[in-house]
Amino acid sequence: MSSCFNKGIDISIFGESHGKAIGVVIGNLPAGENIDIDRICEFMQRRASKKDGTSTTRSEKDIPEVISGLYGGKTTGTPLCAMILNTDHKSVDYGNISHIARPAHADYTGFLRYNGANDPRGGGHFSGRLTAPLCFAGAVCGQILENRGITTGAHIERIKDVCDDKFDPINVSAEQLNAVKSGFPVLSTDAEDKMREIINDARLNSDSLGGIVECAAVGFPAGIGSPMMDGLENIISQLVFSIPAVKGIEFGNGFSCADIFGSENNDEFYIENGKILTKTNNHGGILGGISSGMPIIFRVAFKPTPSISRPQNSVDFKGMTETELVIKGRHDPCVVPRAVPCVEAAMNIALLSALIDDPTI
Amino acid sequence: MSSCFNKGIDISIFGESHGKAIGVVIGNLPAGENIDIDRICEFMQRRASKKDGTSTTRSEKDIPEVISGLYGGKTTGTPLCAMILNTDHKSVDYGNISHIARPAHADYTGFLRYNGANDPRGGGHFSGRLTAPLCFAGAVCGQILENRGITTGAHIERIKDVCDDKFDPINVSAEQLNAVKSGFPVLSTDAEDKMREIINDARLNSDSLGGIVECAAVGFPAGIGSPMMDGLENIISQLVFSIPAVKGIEFGNGFSCADIFGSENNDEFYIENGKILTKTNNHGGILGGISSGMPIIFRVAFKPTPSISRPQNSVDFKGMTETELVIKGRHDPCVVPRAVPCVEAAMNIALLSALIDDPTI
Amino acid sequence: MSSCFNKGIDISIFGESHGKAIGVVIGNLPAGENIDIDRICEFMQRRASKKDGTSTTRSEKDIPEVISGLYGGKTTGTPLCAMILNTDHKSVDYGNISHIARPAHADYTGFLRYNGANDPRGGGHFSGRLTAPLCFAGAVCGQILENRGITTGAHIERIKDVCDDKFDPINVSAEQLNAVKSGFPVLSTDAEDKMREIINDARLNSDSLGGIVECAAVGFPAGIGSPMMDGLENIISQLVFSIPAVKGIEFGNGFSCADIFGSENNDEFYIENGKILTKTNNHGGILGGISSGMPIIFRVAFKPTPSISRPQNSVDFKGMTETELVIKGRHDPCVVPRAVPCVEAAMNIALLSALIDDPTI
Amino acid sequence: MSSCFNKGIDISIFGESHGKAIGVVIGNLPAGENIDIDRICEFMQRRASKKDGTSTTRSEKDIPEVISGLYGGKTTGTPLCAMILNTDHKSVDYGNISHIARPAHADYTGFLRYNGANDPRGGGHFSGRLTAPLCFAGAVCGQILENRGITTGAHIERIKDVCDDKFDPINVSAEQLNAVKSGFPVLSTDAEDKMREIINDARLNSDSLGGIVECAAVGFPAGIGSPMMDGLENIISQLVFSIPAVKGIEFGNGFSCADIFGSENNDEFYIENGKILTKTNNHGGILGGISSGMPIIFRVAFKPTPSISRPQNSVDFKGMTETELVIKGRHDPCVVPRAVPCVEAAMNIALLSALIDDPTI
Repeated sequence: MSSCFNKGIDISIFGESHGKAIGVVIGNLPAGENIDIDRICEFMQRRASKKDGTSTTRSEKDIPEVISGLYGGKTTGTPLCAMILNTDHKSVDYGNISHIARPAHADYTGFLRYNGANDPRGGGHFSGRLTAPLCFAGAVCGQILENRGITTGAHIERIKDVCDDKFDPINVSAEQLNAVKSGFPVLSTDAEDKMREIINDARLNSDSLGGIVECAAVGFPAGIGSPMMDGLENIISQLVFSIPAVKGIEFGNGFSCADIFGSENNDEFYIENGKILTKTNNHGGILGGISSGMPIIFRVAFKPTPSISRPQNSVDFKGMTETELVIKGRHDPCVVPRAVPCVEAAMNIALLSALIDDPTI
Repeated sequence: MSSCFNKGIDISIFGESHGKAIGVVIGNLPAGENIDIDRICEFMQRRASKKDGTSTTRSEKDIPEVISGLYGGKTTGTPLCAMILNTDHKSVDYGNISHIARPAHADYTGFLRYNGANDPRGGGHFSGRLTAPLCFAGAVCGQILENRGITTGAHIERIKDVCDDKFDPINVSAEQLNAVKSGFPVLSTDAEDKMREIINDARLNSDSLGGIVECAAVGFPAGIGSPMMDGLENIISQLVFSIPAVKGIEFGNGFSCADIFGSENNDEFYIENGKILTKTNNHGGILGGISSGMPIIFRVAFKPTPSISRPQNSVDFKGMTETELVIKGRHDPCVVPRAVPCVEAAMNIALLSALIDDPTI
Repeated sequence: MSSCFNKGIDISIFGESHGKAIGVVIGNLPAGENIDIDRICEFMQRRASKKDGTSTTRSEKDIPEVISGLYGGKTTGTPLCAMILNTDHKSVDYGNISHIARPAHADYTGFLRYNGANDPRGGGHFSGRLTAPLCFAGAVCGQILENRGITTGAHIERIKDVCDDKFDPINVSAEQLNAVKSGFPVLSTDAEDKMREIINDARLNSDSLGGIVECAAVGFPAGIGSPMMDGLENIISQLVFSIPAVKGIEFGNGFSCADIFGSENNDEFYIENGKILTKTNNHGGILGGISSGMPIIFRVAFKPTPSISRPQNSVDFKGMTETELVIKGRHDPCVVPRAVPCVEAAMNIALLSALIDDPTI
Repeated sequence: MSSCFNKGIDISIFGESHGKAIGVVIGNLPAGENIDIDRICEFMQRRASKKDGTSTTRSEKDIPEVISGLYGGKTTGTPLCAMILNTDHKSVDYGNISHIARPAHADYTGFLRYNGANDPRGGGHFSGRLTAPLCFAGAVCGQILENRGITTGAHIERIKDVCDDKFDPINVSAEQLNAVKSGFPVLSTDAEDKMREIINDARLNSDSLGGIVECAAVGFPAGIGSPMMDGLENIISQLVFSIPAVKGIEFGNGFSCADIFGSENNDEFYIENGKILTKTNNHGGILGGISSGMPIIFRVAFKPTPSISRPQNSVDFKGMTETELVIKGRHDPCVVPRAVPCVEAAMNIALLSALIDDPTI
């Protein structure tokens, strides 16, 4: 059931890094929703590699072709399929390492899982390229959320010791969430410069970096979600961990809630203009798996790009011998800037699913 | 679909804190597995409240009654249902606050989600008591894992600034994982004393604490899991967030992977005694959603118990008025010691599900 | 995933014929629905054995105990669990045949499926007794449908060559559907007398009978359902085949549509009082998996009760020897009268699920 | 969740009759299975229209393009996506009827279900064309079944009063099931001639016909399937009703089991060459939802093609007026010959899913 998500809406992602194409089928979408393809392409361009030294030089246009599910500019309600052709892959780059496990990659585990039959070129179905159809689905869901006054956004909170500003957990606004969608995805220009610098340094040093992405939603109605297995945290997590290189997720004040007393952590309720709010937002907009009406906030940890150019010790898992590995090919020195829209996409899918899953009849 | 988990095995949890009983139905278990009910009860006693000042004085025996699915001491393969009677609830404790939102609780969000029809007594279906059937299911799954040489365990890694030792991510052993199942769930006696002290201090101060739980599995075979939506991280997360008060989860070195370079984070492979291993285990035993054969390691953040005895500002969400709230009733000053087996249970369910979900035929 | 249904609402059925109890967990119900337990018991009594020679003399009270999910007479929206104790089982009746395959029963196939570990007493989880929790779930769903002006009902259409009247596919009314819920479930008194007679004859002759059940719904809104995998026919079928002894299902004019031309089979549309109707109802109220607003009609075939008292040739599937079998115990000479509410229950669950599954937000 | 099937394997079907393409994503397939694309194309050609007067003159090549999931001629185990271009559609044919409900079609119900936003051209996602990707998926699953010695097949059992021979429920062979895959899908040449004749007569008379398809599987191992919701009958039915125009399904002796006594219907077991068999096969190879090792047999009823050229009374469901309708375009006078591989495909998907779903670990 690996590449399907079936809660509220259905997402089925397919494709391999060096196959003909990658794509996604999105089922159970509400019918009659206006979808602006240009804006979807803009969303996907945020994920595309840049020619600024922060990402791979593999240059995929990532123009999605809609195969079904749109008619007259609106969702039909029947499955929406989009495909993205693979055009700039160079499988030859990978020829020499097909049975040598690249450290921190899924070469070895994938080989075991699929009895050696999986497509190893460029990571196959494990490739970060599969986040392109995820972004497509997230962009579609995002527009349907927007139609209901819900805005989501994300930025790089930190790369190594370079920190961006944080979203204000109380006052983060739709404007701010939209503003960070252009250019390098940070709130502070100063942070951008420093992040670009350390990423470039890592690249020049044949090394790589990870980082933290912060994501938020405003305008999401209170009372959506469920306790236990299908709470907002549960389904957001399930989707976020579909992005390669994610190693952790935390909601609201997250791991730092362990540092304070209940009297500090509890968010007191109050009423303003006839609306129930909380004075602080340590809970990140979710209580008991259900939205409280406060901004939904979470953070996601990404490990450094596994592919680095310097020699590494490894094993040939077919020949069962130890060997030294030098990874060629083109790689992102830091995936985090390109991961920002992926996290936002995962959130969009989760939030729309929760809205649709509400059993009110 | 809120209280069901349907991957590999099916878990359906039911009940409310102050109803007749709580329980669980477990479907799709392998047939013919020996199940030792005494050991299940021992597992559940780890979750039970203690008379040592660290937990609530509500005293539930939590003796599970197996209704179906066991015959002659073995799983039948058809649904295994167990019920746990509620015996020591005092609904009167909650009479005065039924429409006043307890901060950091799900009273308000649950009221919205269920149009005011949910059972509010003691948190109803949102209560931490629902982790008792989760533990039952986890104990059953744990025994089936043990039958295959797989051992899991968990301990408190930290409460506020008191840290326990950590599991060695390379050398953590089944013995160590089993040893921490008796008594206060820490590796270091020194940590136990200090943790008990700060918990007791919080209790005396009408306050509460959260903390971090670390969980590990050894003996889990390499090659189990999947990329994208149903990877081990995805399904462990989905299950762990079913435990109330969880605010974050991280695998391997988790959020700290953002602090180091790829050359530091990558776990190099080597071969020992004909087995492929990694020299470090920053990946926490999971690559591409699939087990690597190294110990599986993750950490879970718990917020401080929301129920504290001191007055708090809040609102009556039915009357739409602001009010002061004083929570009576009996509560855990820190849920973390009792949460340890819950996290272990969630992991057991996830790992067995992944084993069963493998499509090899 | 065997005993769970997860479309719109979640149904998880558990228990064995001779275990402590059988029961059901119903998840994702709309919250705040009035449920009348007395009427549920009435529904279940329609399934209970009668002391009139048409059914087994095993006498189970089948009084459901609600464990969770109801509060103040209304659904809470969280899982509704009900249990039914087994009180009148006599396992000793089955002692001598535990490895001898009763013809047309699941003894042999169940033994293979569960590697010999399933509970063989009285058929275990394969028993027709498991339709009691199905009826409970169907009765709950039926009340929620009624709250929306939807009425369902069923009757015996035929047993061997004795035919009841049929529902008028155009004019069948809520009154008629409700009237057939009392007494022997047929429309014609004459049919009742003849059916009782042939059932009694079969019983006296140590033999058994099957038959056809016809089921209908009126008041179900047009436009509910979906094409392809989750159409109304698909989910009604999936649920109906959960009833033991069902061998076929047909919608509208069903198999007889093969006897006529398209010009005869097509139901022409017309408008009456501002409502779109069809002049005939060969389509049984479903087109493209979606309700048309016409009465939903389908028929279900039941095979004769497998358990008959006369000697039969069979095999000991453990000892792999041929043997003669004489089934003792108490059995229904014809399950069809008791199966009528089961079919209605399956329909109720399917229709409510389709209503809830509608993705409109 | 309409166009997904998620039991054992995942099937997600997309596309509209007059859109760019139709296709399918197949997930959770076992890895490393040899797939012969030529034989898949042969399978799909059995569904293609013929130039012999029995089917529409719309001529689609139906050449599937595999996008992902095959590498080196074998399944990778990751999602297998195939697309089929729409090339010969003439949307103009449908221009005049877009809001006039074609009798027995889903125009009106689809309009309601999707709030008027669905693609109406040629039936959109409701079109019989969507059985092309179903056949693709069924052909893939069929080859994987063949790799395990399992053979399936189907033929037309009856069109109006013209009957073909039936499969012998005991002795039907793989050879016979394969032989009927060439040419007109009947066992008897005499039946072919008569069927062609009445189909041609119906066509010349601007009318249409339905019929009955019989399907069988041999070599399927005993002990596969489950009681209650996911039995073989349940999942075969769920899949078969995804084929437009299906109105009924029956297993084994089906509806005729209502005509005989239990002593006649019960299939007695015996042992031959160390294997347990039944002397008769009224049960159609399935007992308690689980395979018995005997041939699996079922029959499916198809209604006459709804599209007929003669004038019909209908309504404009947007304008809410009554009108006369004359359907232009190209249509099958009888869908049954082309439906035969579709039923076989549905069975193949169901059987492989049941094999994969087995929880043995």
